[in-house]
Amino acid sequence: MAQQNLTAATDFPVKKPREGDDNGATNGGGTISSVIPGWFSEISTMWPGEAHSLKVEKILFQGKSDYQDVMVFQSATYGKVLVLDGVIQLTERDECSYQEMITHLPLCSIPNPKKVLVIGGGDGGVLREVARHSSVEHIDICEIDKMVVDVSKEHFPDVAVGYEDPRVTLHIGDGVAFLKAAQEGIYDAVIVDSSDPIGPAQELFEKPFFESVAKALRPGGVMCTQAESIWLHMHIIEGIVENCRQVFKGSVNYAWTTVPTYPSGVIGFMLCSTEGPEVDFKNPINPIDVKENQKKSTIPLKFYNQELALQLIAALKHNI
Amino acid sequence: MAQQNLTAATDFPVKKPREGDDNGATNGGGTISSVIPGWFSEISTMWPGEAHSLKVEKILFQGKSDYQDVMVFQSATYGKVLVLDGVIQLTERDECSYQEMITHLPLCSIPNPKKVLVIGGGDGGVLREVARHSSVEHIDICEIDKMVVDVSKEHFPDVAVGYEDPRVTLHIGDGVAFLKAAQEGIYDAVIVDSSDPIGPAQELFEKPFFESVAKALRPGGVMCTQAESIWLHMHIIEGIVENCRQVFKGSVNYAWTTVPTYPSGVIGFMLCSTEGPEVDFKNPINPIDVKENQKKSTIPLKFYNQELALQLIAALKHNI
Repeated sequence: MAQQNLTAATDFPVKKPREGDDNGATNGGGTISSVIPGWFSEISTMWPGEAHSLKVEKILFQGKSDYQDVMVFQSATYGKVLVLDGVIQLTERDECSYQEMITHLPLCSIPNPKKVLVIGGGDGGVLREVARHSSVEHIDICEIDKMVVDVSKEHFPDVAVGYEDPRVTLHIGDGVAFLKAAQEGIYDAVIVDSSDPIGPAQELFEKPFFESVAKALRPGGVMCTQAESIWLHMHIIEGIVENCRQVFKGSVNYAWTTVPTYPSGVIGFMLCSTEGPEVDFKNPINPIDVKENQKKSTIPLKFYNQELALQLIAALKHNI
Repeated sequence: MAQQNLTAATDFPVKKPREGDDNGATNGGGTISSVIPGWFSEISTMWPGEAHSLKVEKILFQGKSDYQDVMVFQSATYGKVLVLDGVIQLTERDECSYQEMITHLPLCSIPNPKKVLVIGGGDGGVLREVARHSSVEHIDICEIDKMVVDVSKEHFPDVAVGYEDPRVTLHIGDGVAFLKAAQEGIYDAVIVDSSDPIGPAQELFEKPFFESVAKALRPGGVMCTQAESIWLHMHIIEGIVENCRQVFKGSVNYAWTTVPTYPSGVIGFMLCSTEGPEVDFKNPINPIDVKENQKKSTIPLKFYNQELALQLIAALKHNI
C-alpha cells in the first residue's frame, strides 16, 4: 500500500512525524499516513501507542510561524480546533475546562489580585478568565508567537475576546526573558499557559524559570502552570514538583481537570505560592462575582465552580 | 483505495460499523476500514466525530457470546485490553481508576457494609475491590455473560482475582431479574458495573430497575452505578439523575473519575442512598484498612484515596 493511496483519499495533510516518532503504521518499509482519512490524528512520542482523532470538516488555516506549525480546522463535533506542531491546543467545545481552571484555581485563592502576568496563552482564553476578576487592575501577557494571537483573533473570537479588555497589555516576545527583566515582587499571580515541555516551551518547566517567577511575585503571590497528565507523564510531573518545592517556599500543590481532547483526557496544574501570607489552594477565599460578570454580559463560566475547584486539587498521593 | 488494501496491511479485524455509524472513512462510495492499520479504533454513534485508538501488538481472543462480541488484545502501551461489541471495557493500565472509584465511593460511605451485590462487572475487578473491605461477609455478583467471566479469568488474572475471594457467589443471569427476585432490604450496597445504555444494558438505566435496587437495599443502603461522561452524554445523565431523584429518598450525587481509554477520558457514577440513616458521600466515614490489606498481600490500591474521593464527588452544577 503506497503512501499516495492513503493520502489520495483525503485532502487532509499528513502529519509530518517528528524524528523518532513511531506512528505504528509503517508498511513495507515506507512511512505512510497514520491518519484515518478525513480525520486529524494526534500521534506523538509523548503518548506512544495511542492516538485521539477528530473528524475534520474543513481546514480553515495553515501556516508556519517562526516557531511552529499553526493550523485551525473545523471539526465535526468539537467546533473549531487550534493545532500547534501537530498537537491540539484547544477546541471550542472543551476549552472552558482548561482556561477556567488554570486561571481561577490561583486567582480565587488570594485576596484582591491586582497585577497578573500570563506567559504563553496567545489564544487569549486565560485573559478572558482573568478579566472576570474585578479587583484586577493590570494584565500583562507575554506570548512568543504573534501568529497564534492573530489566528485566534480571526478564528476564535469567543476565546480571543480576552484581548478586548482594556486592562490587557500584550507583549510579543520570550516569556523567560520577560520575567528576568520584570520588576521584583510586582505580580500577585503568574499563569503559565504553555505547550508541552518538549520543544520551545521546555525552559518553562525548569528551575531557573521558576526562580524568575518567584522573584516577580509579591510575598504570598501565586503561580499556576500547565503540568501535564498524571496518566502519561508522572516522571515529568515529579521533576516539576521537585523543582517547585525547591523554589516556592509557600505551598506547592498539584491539581488537574478533565479536557477530552488532551491526551489521556486530563491535564494537570502546579499551584505554588511564595513565602508570605499563607495560601490554601484547597479553600479558595476569593470567589468570582458572578452577578458582576452577568452585568457586563461576559460569556458565562461553563466549568469552574468553587466546589469543583476544591475537588480537583489532588494531593500527589496516588502511585499510578 | 479498495478495502483489501487497507486490511491487507494488518491481520487486525475491521470493526463492523453499527447501523447508522458514520465512520468518517468512506471512500468512493464503499465503506472501508476505519482502523488505522495495526491499531484498534473505537468509533461509535455514542461519541460521533472522535475516536480513540490503541496500537495493537497481538489479538489474544475473539469470540461471540450469546450477548456480544468479545475480544482481548495486547496493546503496545496500555497492557491487555478487553473489548465488548467494539467498545473498550478495561485496559490493564487504567482499570484501577474505574474499579476503585465505583467500589470505594459507595462502600467507604457507610459503616460496616456486610452484604454487597454487583450487577455486571463480569471481569471481576469490582469484586477485587469489594474484597478489600474486611466487614463484608457476602458478595453476590450477577453477570449475564459467562464468556466475559471466563475470558477475564484467563487473560486478566490481576482483575479476575476478585473471584478467588471465598465470600463471592457468582450468578450467571439477568441482573434485572435477579434483583426482582432478591429479598427486600437484604443488601448494604449495590454496585452496577454496566456497559453503555444502548444495547443489553439499557434497562439498567431505567426507573423500574432503580426501584428494584432501592427495594433490595436496607434503609440507608447505597447504590453506585456507571453513569456516562459529562462531556458526551449530559442529556442521558440528566435522565438518570431524574430517575434516581424519584426513587432514592436519601441522597443523590453525581461523581466522576478519569479513565484515559474511555471516550472523553472521564466516566461518571450515580451515588444514591435509600431513606434511613443519612449517607454523606462527600465525607466518607469508612476508610479502607490499608494495613489489613497489606497483611493479606492484596494487590495494592493504585488510584483511590480518601482525599481524592472527596474531590471527585462533583455536584451537577456546571452547564457543559
